Amino acid sequence: MREFLFPNSVAVVGASPKADSIGGQILLQLLKSFKSRVYAVNPKYRRGEVGGVEVQFYESATNLPEAPELVVVATPAEITPRVVDDAGRAGAKAAIVVSGGFSEIGRRDLENELVKTAQKHGMRVLGPNCIGVYNAFNGLDTMFLPVEKAARPPPGPIAFLSQSGAVMTAALDWAAGEGIGVGIAVNFGNRADVTEADFIEFLANSKEISVIALYLEGFRWKGDAARFLKVAKRSSKPVVVYKAGRGSDSARAAASHTAAMAGAYEMYHALFRQAGVIEADDLVELFDMAKALAVYGPRRVDSVLVVSSSGGMGVQIVDAVNSVGLRVPELPEEGREELRKYLLPIATVSNPVDLTGGGNNAHFGKALEIGLRYTDAAVVAALIHPPGYNEDVAKEIIDVLEKHKKPIIVVSFGSSPQTKALEEALRSRVVVVNTPRRAARALLAVALYGSKVDHRGGKGGDEHNTSQGVDSGISPPPGGVVPK
Amino acid sequence: MREFLFPNSVAVVGASPKADSIGGQILLQLLKSFKSRVYAVNPKYRRGEVGGVEVQFYESATNLPEAPELVVVATPAEITPRVVDDAGRAGAKAAIVVSGGFSEIGRRDLENELVKTAQKHGMRVLGPNCIGVYNAFNGLDTMFLPVEKAARPPPGPIAFLSQSGAVMTAALDWAAGEGIGVGIAVNFGNRADVTEADFIEFLANSKEISVIALYLEGFRWKGDAARFLKVAKRSSKPVVVYKAGRGSDSARAAASHTAAMAGAYEMYHALFRQAGVIEADDLVELFDMAKALAVYGPRRVDSVLVVSSSGGMGVQIVDAVNSVGLRVPELPEEGREELRKYLLPIATVSNPVDLTGGGNNAHFGKALEIGLRYTDAAVVAALIHPPGYNEDVAKEIIDVLEKHKKPIIVVSFGSSPQTKALEEALRSRVVVVNTPRRAARALLAVALYGSKVDHRGGKGGDEHNTSQGVDSGISPPPGGVVPK
Repeated sequence: MREFLFPNSVAVVGASPKADSIGGQILLQLLKSFKSRVYAVNPKYRRGEVGGVEVQFYESATNLPEAPELVVVATPAEITPRVVDDAGRAGAKAAIVVSGGFSEIGRRDLENELVKTAQKHGMRVLGPNCIGVYNAFNGLDTMFLPVEKAARPPPGPIAFLSQSGAVMTAALDWAAGEGIGVGIAVNFGNRADVTEADFIEFLANSKEISVIALYLEGFRWKGDAARFLKVAKRSSKPVVVYKAGRGSDSARAAASHTAAMAGAYEMYHALFRQAGVIEADDLVELFDMAKALAVYGPRRVDSVLVVSSSGGMGVQIVDAVNSVGLRVPELPEEGREELRKYLLPIATVSNPVDLTGGGNNAHFGKALEIGLRYTDAAVVAALIHPPGYNEDVAKEIIDVLEKHKKPIIVVSFGSSPQTKALEEALRSRVVVVNTPRRAARALLAVALYGSKVDHRGGKGGDEHNTSQGVDSGISPPPGGVVPK
Repeated sequence: MREFLFPNSVAVVGASPKADSIGGQILLQLLKSFKSRVYAVNPKYRRGEVGGVEVQFYESATNLPEAPELVVVATPAEITPRVVDDAGRAGAKAAIVVSGGFSEIGRRDLENELVKTAQKHGMRVLGPNCIGVYNAFNGLDTMFLPVEKAARPPPGPIAFLSQSGAVMTAALDWAAGEGIGVGIAVNFGNRADVTEADFIEFLANSKEISVIALYLEGFRWKGDAARFLKVAKRSSKPVVVYKAGRGSDSARAAASHTAAMAGAYEMYHALFRQAGVIEADDLVELFDMAKALAVYGPRRVDSVLVVSSSGGMGVQIVDAVNSVGLRVPELPEEGREELRKYLLPIATVSNPVDLTGGGNNAHFGKALEIGLRYTDAAVVAALIHPPGYNEDVAKEIIDVLEKHKKPIIVVSFGSSPQTKALEEALRSRVVVVNTPRRAARALLAVALYGSKVDHRGGKGGDEHNTSQGVDSGISPPPGGVVPK
């Protein structure tokens, strides 16, 4: 499995000097971004210019100067078994078959032949009919789309596994704009051999990735669900899933396997619960949850502190936090008394804490620091319009985060230069979203995973902070948490 | 009421040449943006420089060269009754009292005195303790915040009424970034005299505004609810409301009127239904719904067409559309046959229509045009990553919109230059959102209002399109629509 993401060398079979062909686009992309050796295979060419560089073309994978650990296949479907056979004989360990024309158009025979050929050589196959992989760490990128069509996210601890190639492309494009680090992404296509479970198993042991996010429409074979359950359940990293195709109209839409999927969402939902997998309700939420888990790890989250410079935003956040089953309890008198010492007389020293428009940056820090002594997490509406606040409030929030090691999620809603500067300053360290609902759902993911880790007697919280001796994150399951 | 938004002249009482005072900031903002006469009143100054301009200060409203239709009061609370008395004697019709220090700190006596003084002169009072009004049409802007702290939206047909000043500021700041035209915004503060109902009544008859969006925490007096019901019910313009403070923790947070609000959300929900008011679940949804109503008007929406270049996005949209109670029915064979003529052989000519990554811009247009003959509205996942698509797909969508006059909502999810260019091109004509849920909720608002207009035997659809003779928008209430 390692060879799909971290090969020492890659050969593109069906490579071309023509940038408008798929084989040409993949070759060009890999030459630009992959940080190791790339070989071009196509008997039609000897040499050609690709992206301004002279490239040598090889007749077959068997002619290469070294065994390519990975081959990317972009040839007509009919010849892919032969191409994979050559690659196997040359010593390749894995093949990403981009080519379409297999079971999706009724050619299951060709798909079976492809897989059998690979198995003969001990090779694994991703696809066919897929866009393959994106690895931000080493530039392995088979997405064959230029950046003006699809932005690429920066490296980061989130892996994104997607049953849909278009959804993977769109989600990575969106994540890039949000500054969300997605280190690895994989699209499965027809899933003739390798499945989600294989990558979950592999990534759960990788040092680069800390959260696995999955876009799923449905399992293809009966055994898929059982294998997924086993692998997800024992994964040492959180798995978040967004399952699409829930209703009857969408089940009909999922053409070939309609019968299997119709009305089956409740079955998936039960499976996810059993596997300790956290469910998101759309792609945005999937990444919010993944980012929260990457930043904060598993945590006890029962009671939530809400702090804002606007009573109105505070009330909205309390509604959202309550709606996912988490509590916003009144602070004890001791805590309120201490808050009174630091905040304005007109501030509401309750929970939610309302600093009012008369407050300032330092008040945000004080309210968080004192309030978090009595609660497990905080959601902050970091509204900075009134005169006493500005984007430097980011520093106050990050300081408390570093000291308390408890999850703090920020709701920021605006477009002014100061608001954008605040979001930019927070982004690298804190989850920043634009609605209370997104904040509450992200916090719920942290809470649910905290409860899973605790049930297993695991130590999920450790890698995130016990080195600094604060709050191990292990606790009884939060009583108020209602999974979805 | 007109004088609060369209006065011929404005006097700022408590004006100052000091930009760091509230009276100074309001004066500066009005001098910069208000397109009519602005007077500064403050006995402490004779002349002063404000924003590089020499300004004459008057001792009292009674000394002005003309009767100010509107006075904006930013003086200490204690002297506001006297200030309003002067304004009334000078002939003012309305007062926006920005000053705090009234019922919100227990000084109901002073608040009553203020209102009584105004009533003596036949004046109306907005506030006290409010940020007042924003009118993009004539630049009347009492928000006293510079643009780098709070962006202002462009003029447009949406009015935003907000019980919270900070929420109004944040929402306008956000709307500005989204390019949503919010022509008028009003914050009510303590609501000692003028309430939401007064503005709904006034705006329902204004030619500038076509949709009224309301952020509500709760009514203050018993009579408020009855008056709101009456006014909203007979409003000829759609009213969309987001009611915050729904749970027990947030009811506690709504300090002074806790008893009245606790557990009362169901009452509000029933009231909104009775009044034909459409409910949003957060601020983003409030503006999505308002924009959809402004763009498309009331419409019959029972069946929805879904078109995408990605089967995965299509499935997600079907889920969301189903979840708000709208149907995504299979197209009749006649329609599918016609689609087959224009789309690729590998395209799915069903509903959802999947153009596949091999399609092109023109396919989007054809699928919409043919599909909309059999359905009431469309949601399009305008994913343009594959080679055959680009931002010009906006033209195809707008062409069909103009021809069919049926609501089309676009889901666009990404950050690449092409995606941003597409969103920019669509924005002025079409509702563009980034999740299927937002699209479905916006469409639901159109459907619900369509059903309300029909129940009344009204002609809501007419102003939007019968001049072009297509689809009156009046129809039996959509059977599948489940209000929230």
